[in-house]
Amino acid sequence: MNISPNMWFPVTVNCVYSIVAYIVTVRLIPKFKDMFIKANLYGIDMSKNRKEKIPEALGVVVGCMFLITLFFFIPIPFGQYIIQNENFPHDEFVELVSALLSICCMILLGFADDVLDLRWRHKLLLPTIATLPLLMVYYVTFNSTTIIVPKPFRPWCGNSIDLGIVYYIYMGMLAVFCTNAINILAGVNGLEVGQSIIIALSIIMFNLVELGGDLWKAHQFSLYFMLPFLATSVALLRHNWYPSRVFVGDTFCYFSGMTFAVVGILGHFSKTMLLFFLPQVVNFIYSVPQLFHLVPCPRHRLPRYNARTDKLEPSTTKFKMSDLNVLGRLSMKIFQILHLIRWEEVKDDDTKSTYIECNNLTLINFVLICAGPTHEATLTAVLLIIQVLCSLLAFIIRYPLASLFYDIKY
Amino acid sequence: MNISPNMWFPVTVNCVYSIVAYIVTVRLIPKFKDMFIKANLYGIDMSKNRKEKIPEALGVVVGCMFLITLFFFIPIPFGQYIIQNENFPHDEFVELVSALLSICCMILLGFADDVLDLRWRHKLLLPTIATLPLLMVYYVTFNSTTIIVPKPFRPWCGNSIDLGIVYYIYMGMLAVFCTNAINILAGVNGLEVGQSIIIALSIIMFNLVELGGDLWKAHQFSLYFMLPFLATSVALLRHNWYPSRVFVGDTFCYFSGMTFAVVGILGHFSKTMLLFFLPQVVNFIYSVPQLFHLVPCPRHRLPRYNARTDKLEPSTTKFKMSDLNVLGRLSMKIFQILHLIRWEEVKDDDTKSTYIECNNLTLINFVLICAGPTHEATLTAVLLIIQVLCSLLAFIIRYPLASLFYDIKY
Repeated sequence: MNISPNMWFPVTVNCVYSIVAYIVTVRLIPKFKDMFIKANLYGIDMSKNRKEKIPEALGVVVGCMFLITLFFFIPIPFGQYIIQNENFPHDEFVELVSALLSICCMILLGFADDVLDLRWRHKLLLPTIATLPLLMVYYVTFNSTTIIVPKPFRPWCGNSIDLGIVYYIYMGMLAVFCTNAINILAGVNGLEVGQSIIIALSIIMFNLVELGGDLWKAHQFSLYFMLPFLATSVALLRHNWYPSRVFVGDTFCYFSGMTFAVVGILGHFSKTMLLFFLPQVVNFIYSVPQLFHLVPCPRHRLPRYNARTDKLEPSTTKFKMSDLNVLGRLSMKIFQILHLIRWEEVKDDDTKSTYIECNNLTLINFVLICAGPTHEATLTAVLLIIQVLCSLLAFIIRYPLASLFYDIKY
Repeated sequence: MNISPNMWFPVTVNCVYSIVAYIVTVRLIPKFKDMFIKANLYGIDMSKNRKEKIPEALGVVVGCMFLITLFFFIPIPFGQYIIQNENFPHDEFVELVSALLSICCMILLGFADDVLDLRWRHKLLLPTIATLPLLMVYYVTFNSTTIIVPKPFRPWCGNSIDLGIVYYIYMGMLAVFCTNAINILAGVNGLEVGQSIIIALSIIMFNLVELGGDLWKAHQFSLYFMLPFLATSVALLRHNWYPSRVFVGDTFCYFSGMTFAVVGILGHFSKTMLLFFLPQVVNFIYSVPQLFHLVPCPRHRLPRYNARTDKLEPSTTKFKMSDLNVLGRLSMKIFQILHLIRWEEVKDDDTKSTYIECNNLTLINFVLICAGPTHEATLTAVLLIIQVLCSLLAFIIRYPLASLFYDIKY
């Protein structure tokens, strides 16, 4: 164990800052509600009987509180160097600053998206550009693009492979994936923030375990970000939980996705972090036929609200089988064989043609197919429990299972 | 002369990037117009006969283009270190990244202000917080808080004074001043961007002169920011010049103010930079009685449009002398003695009381008092010529005059 007095002091201060940030944020959010509605930033909750204006994009308040907390925190880890004013660890400092730059960029982009309704190409292009400073910092401070080969493959590939530029492309794509993955597993009160909180908690647990290892500095770095993120997100969840008084907007999804990508990349645990994104990965793969328009994709895929029962039911998309291309038909066939979709043939009496009615391909709808019509708060809870179970699975893969494939020191 | 091959290469690449940024920005702005109007981000031009919707806050497009340009530029100055992968100058790198962080924060704040109409306390508090990383970088990379005392004062103060923390407070306030100073000298088509362009050109000239000196690295650093800033701003001016097809919004004013503050602080020429802000300083001092509510301040102080003549006239504020406090009366008295205001006593026949009608205290209204009713395009031109003359004065103060007070090597 490599415990130095330097390890816990900044983390403790960060904890205190985070508690203050929580208290301020939880009080600040209601004060901004009217301002957002006045600025035309509101939505109507489609899954409620009462059709009132709910302020949208409150993620920007949370994002700014997060940034402010970290701005005040910046000097703390460097206290001793500041007092001595020598041997300043510029490389650690630049990691902190460039991480904040990427996150700040994504908050700006997310807010612009909420206000302006950006196009898809912006949503893919801008996060890639926002990671450039980050990758540059990775290059000059760490630049390890070597991955350890799992034992069974070693006879063919050797002990390790240097992926070089491919590793950088992977990291750039990781940022794009993280920012968008949370955004497409959304649409039920409290789900965006809830899943982010569980991912954050998982990362914090992982960091705390690894603080005892050789790479403790990287995990300490991750904690600097995760603790204030957790605090401000919990403050948001209090207002966003069923029934939501505020919506979080794309701003929050982008902000949280980029924060995870940043700590994954600069904390050097991007592969472990992807394990915590299991439900998001599953949801993404399940959504592929609709995201790539192999199957028609309506503008909103959130569950259908049944006002009579006050429960949510799977929403559907309608199409003619003959309108799909080869890939579309193939993907539908595979999903059908695996019993992953609810599939109905509807005869149109007027045109004498047969339509297919299939659920929209999201994890949320899939849960509704399995569980039947569900109340919104219960549905969020079920989805969050799935997230927790996936995190447990991730820990099992990362620790006991990994030792089968890698040489791990304890 | 300390010319190294390293001096011109990055600046040249930056020039090329800036030209590309100009071409892209000038084409991009019109494409975003409808998106902004749809998002309720528009204003009606009060100084025109045609009352059409003009998209507002287009500064965010310019700011983002500026950021993207610099993100792609980041690796360039460090090319040789990247190839060798040793002796990487982390301190220079962190200056670049933290400067971008502060600018990105201000673009976010400016855009949030345009969308949400933030309160005054946010406008003062947030720029201060956004400069924290910058001041921290200044501390760890430079930390010179010593100023040279002008020759006439040396018998009393010595050759130099170390201002210590006071210098940091000054730099923090500089950022707040710059971000707001451009914002309050505004309201006529093209003025915000026009003045920013002239300030940028002045800084670029100053940097080019100083590239031959010992501190060439700091001035090279400043050029990295000023060239793309100039390019994207000129692109904006083409759409914002009379008659404006787009408005720039607080976003642009904050973005440009912070960019100037950043290069002034990290380029170590914050005092010279303030010289280029002469019209803004004058406008601020002239505005003080209204900004601090010693004299009633209407929500908008822009000139009054005379639809018949298509010319602008000074706008006014009305008050009773007896309603002012001591400071208000004193400031009005001083301005009156110095002939800086147009002042009329109006008798109200109904209430038998006497009102004062005085022009709103802005440089724009003052110019209109001196020049009489003026066409909007002419007024902008006159104000920009004043800005150019002040820059010339600044160069005279900085070079020939300064040698009287300081020992300057040529």
